[in-house]
Amino acid sequence: MSRKIQVTVWNENRHEQLNEEVRKVYPNGIHEALAAPLRESGMDVRTATLEQPEHGLSQEVLDQTDVLIWWGHIAHDQVSEEIVERVHQRVLGGMGLIVLHSGHFSKIFKRLMGTGCDLKWREADEKERLWVVNPSHPIVEGLGQYIELEREEMYGEFFDIPEPEELILVSWFEGGEVFRSGCTFTRGQGKIFYFRPGHETYPTYHQSDIQKIIVNGVRWASPTNGPKPVYGNHPPIENIKAKS
Amino acid sequence: MSRKIQVTVWNENRHEQLNEEVRKVYPNGIHEALAAPLRESGMDVRTATLEQPEHGLSQEVLDQTDVLIWWGHIAHDQVSEEIVERVHQRVLGGMGLIVLHSGHFSKIFKRLMGTGCDLKWREADEKERLWVVNPSHPIVEGLGQYIELEREEMYGEFFDIPEPEELILVSWFEGGEVFRSGCTFTRGQGKIFYFRPGHETYPTYHQSDIQKIIVNGVRWASPTNGPKPVYGNHPPIENIKAKS
Amino acid sequence: MSRKIQVTVWNENRHEQLNEEVRKVYPNGIHEALAAPLRESGMDVRTATLEQPEHGLSQEVLDQTDVLIWWGHIAHDQVSEEIVERVHQRVLGGMGLIVLHSGHFSKIFKRLMGTGCDLKWREADEKERLWVVNPSHPIVEGLGQYIELEREEMYGEFFDIPEPEELILVSWFEGGEVFRSGCTFTRGQGKIFYFRPGHETYPTYHQSDIQKIIVNGVRWASPTNGPKPVYGNHPPIENIKAKS
Amino acid sequence: MSRKIQVTVWNENRHEQLNEEVRKVYPNGIHEALAAPLRESGMDVRTATLEQPEHGLSQEVLDQTDVLIWWGHIAHDQVSEEIVERVHQRVLGGMGLIVLHSGHFSKIFKRLMGTGCDLKWREADEKERLWVVNPSHPIVEGLGQYIELEREEMYGEFFDIPEPEELILVSWFEGGEVFRSGCTFTRGQGKIFYFRPGHETYPTYHQSDIQKIIVNGVRWASPTNGPKPVYGNHPPIENIKAKS
Repeated sequence: MSRKIQVTVWNENRHEQLNEEVRKVYPNGIHEALAAPLRESGMDVRTATLEQPEHGLSQEVLDQTDVLIWWGHIAHDQVSEEIVERVHQRVLGGMGLIVLHSGHFSKIFKRLMGTGCDLKWREADEKERLWVVNPSHPIVEGLGQYIELEREEMYGEFFDIPEPEELILVSWFEGGEVFRSGCTFTRGQGKIFYFRPGHETYPTYHQSDIQKIIVNGVRWASPTNGPKPVYGNHPPIENIKAKS
Repeated sequence: MSRKIQVTVWNENRHEQLNEEVRKVYPNGIHEALAAPLRESGMDVRTATLEQPEHGLSQEVLDQTDVLIWWGHIAHDQVSEEIVERVHQRVLGGMGLIVLHSGHFSKIFKRLMGTGCDLKWREADEKERLWVVNPSHPIVEGLGQYIELEREEMYGEFFDIPEPEELILVSWFEGGEVFRSGCTFTRGQGKIFYFRPGHETYPTYHQSDIQKIIVNGVRWASPTNGPKPVYGNHPPIENIKAKS
Repeated sequence: MSRKIQVTVWNENRHEQLNEEVRKVYPNGIHEALAAPLRESGMDVRTATLEQPEHGLSQEVLDQTDVLIWWGHIAHDQVSEEIVERVHQRVLGGMGLIVLHSGHFSKIFKRLMGTGCDLKWREADEKERLWVVNPSHPIVEGLGQYIELEREEMYGEFFDIPEPEELILVSWFEGGEVFRSGCTFTRGQGKIFYFRPGHETYPTYHQSDIQKIIVNGVRWASPTNGPKPVYGNHPPIENIKAKS
Repeated sequence: MSRKIQVTVWNENRHEQLNEEVRKVYPNGIHEALAAPLRESGMDVRTATLEQPEHGLSQEVLDQTDVLIWWGHIAHDQVSEEIVERVHQRVLGGMGLIVLHSGHFSKIFKRLMGTGCDLKWREADEKERLWVVNPSHPIVEGLGQYIELEREEMYGEFFDIPEPEELILVSWFEGGEVFRSGCTFTRGQGKIFYFRPGHETYPTYHQSDIQKIIVNGVRWASPTNGPKPVYGNHPPIENIKAKS
């Protein structure tokens, strides 16, 4: 119980290099903004980015990761198939995964969902209000009945994902849309949390309620020491009658 | 985080008084057998029984209870409507509830489910094998792929409950039936876990894997400090345009 | 397949008698407005109201009803316990139930849900937009991606129901709230569809898309000829070994 | 409503060529055994097999298919990636898919699930009994409370699939295992039904209850004319206030 949760925050880290506006909001990159509150809550956190060898996601790193956080947007297609496959296997083996915002279109999320993961979107400096629809879920511990973001990108339904196992947050947008913004899934032994907010030009990840949800999400997605699945050919446990 | 979980174990406590066979298996009552492993795991545990004033479930006791465990069988109809209502309100307000075995026919479980909660049954000293079908769920932490009970009462499908939010265990019975034996539900702010085994004449609750599931179930069902629901008439948050 | 679906539309029918504004919108009562499109789609439809003997819901009427539609608001407490119990048993036995708008607080809906069914509300002539989040569900056959209602009462989250088995529609409200507006549940053999819109002073039930959803909902909730559940004590199907 | 459902039955068709025992049970191939009862129930049925050009699944065939049935076992890896991608897109676009037995390990099922889809298995001429756990579901219309198969291959838990949206059948096996044998999923606009039985050396698909479930499954999985999802960049429906 006392072992620290091992988190790896993965960030594409491209907007930060291309766009001064983003650098102003996230001077050390989105990954460092995400890492800070996790560290403050007592977790062991490392970061990894696309430009690193193996995108910073060597087998060794993944084997030591309890929960992986994923932020990507304009370079999904530059993530190598080999690394996607490696992350996929680790999730099925029990590693938690938090997919943020535009990560909905990442290769790993689409592979885990089995759907297109498309949605409606708009960048219009509009207000988002995330309503809690599952108040006893550990992911919303310590929160109020909603969170307001003064300016965010809009994501609208239909969001092409499988029916979430748990729907935790639903967003209201000023421009007239709604969105299933906090959704959980299980794949193999791994727990997955999709959380919508976090457009790169807005200070969303500096907001304390957003940070709280991500910290809670990491705790929820951490692996449990459950039964290791057993597959393949197995003799009967009980006697089978010979048939005539 | 460091506050101990407050558990109340409620037992009808009638078989123990009427049947020597049951007294041999549970000399201090089923409630004490259930309480022991919870105490060992560091929880604050009290017991309550039908014959006590208010069945041992005063408002004060319930207000101090994080998770209530319920075992009843032959005296469901002697549980007063007032106490059922009180427990119902506490569950909706966030108290966890673990319903065991024949508690499927208790007033409180039927009220929370909204269905008849009927099933098929048989007492024939037969083998039960509970298979884990949700291996990453915290309720099966530390378990193997199945649990065997050498002798148990059979419960068979169709079990008239709403579709469980999570199905965790499915039982195989020697006589040819299956049963959804570990099921979770949420009602209001309260989490509910139904767990099948525990016929009064068998030493089921002395078995360590069964105890482990109940301890895990109590941890899972403990209240989280989520948003307190807000109901009733509320002014708009955003401006509403006057219609012509 | 060729037998007509038998529908009973139940309406409290009080606002219509007390409020001229409601009479203008629904001159023959909400029940007749609901019945008309069901009749046009080829169903056998009768209506029933609170003031009738047995509220128009005799055992004979219910036995002949495939799907019951329920609209009530200011007189929930005048529905007799006996009739609620009768409707409950028929739903468990396979009758479909469509609960509309303020019916969320009806005795029958609360009994089937097992929760308080409370919510947030406001009457402010505001716009509602219902977004489809489950586009392959038969209940939204023939619809577009959303429905707009120029003026409706607001219902806001948290809506105190169990997690819906299927979430089909989510509402956006002009004043800033969201709501799970189209939800399905199963209880016993009966299918239940909760559909939010329909405040008595607005012409909501005259709108064709709203009518289409209710017609689809009735078709979806119609009983299937499935296996009749078998309960009680049963001998083993397979041999049980004598234990030593 | 009067248009016939268009079904394509796809079969790997290898065992039939390699194994005389299988030819005795299915002299015209598993695909023809599956097609016959669908034709009798009034559907338009064509068959397709692995050895045909494009495996018999040209874009034109798929575009005309309402529901595709899939049986494969020893040659999953010989199904071309291009065809798998084509089928995947058609399912997301609304085509129903019934995956049978060893099809659990097909490329298309694994892609749609996002998991490994592994399980435990054994060929031991043992009895299987499929219990209905969702009696009001249209897929079990006309059935009794269980189906018995005198001899079948065993499939046992843990079955590595995402939590089914609906669990309809649970199998009991003579040798001591259980299995979630009838499961539904939605992906995009497409409905998916996984149905366990059908080992090639047993006459399972000649049994009338098994045929009834497959016919019901095809009806259930047939596309509905729901809202066509709209994706991409969209202007606001409501005014967005200029922020200071």
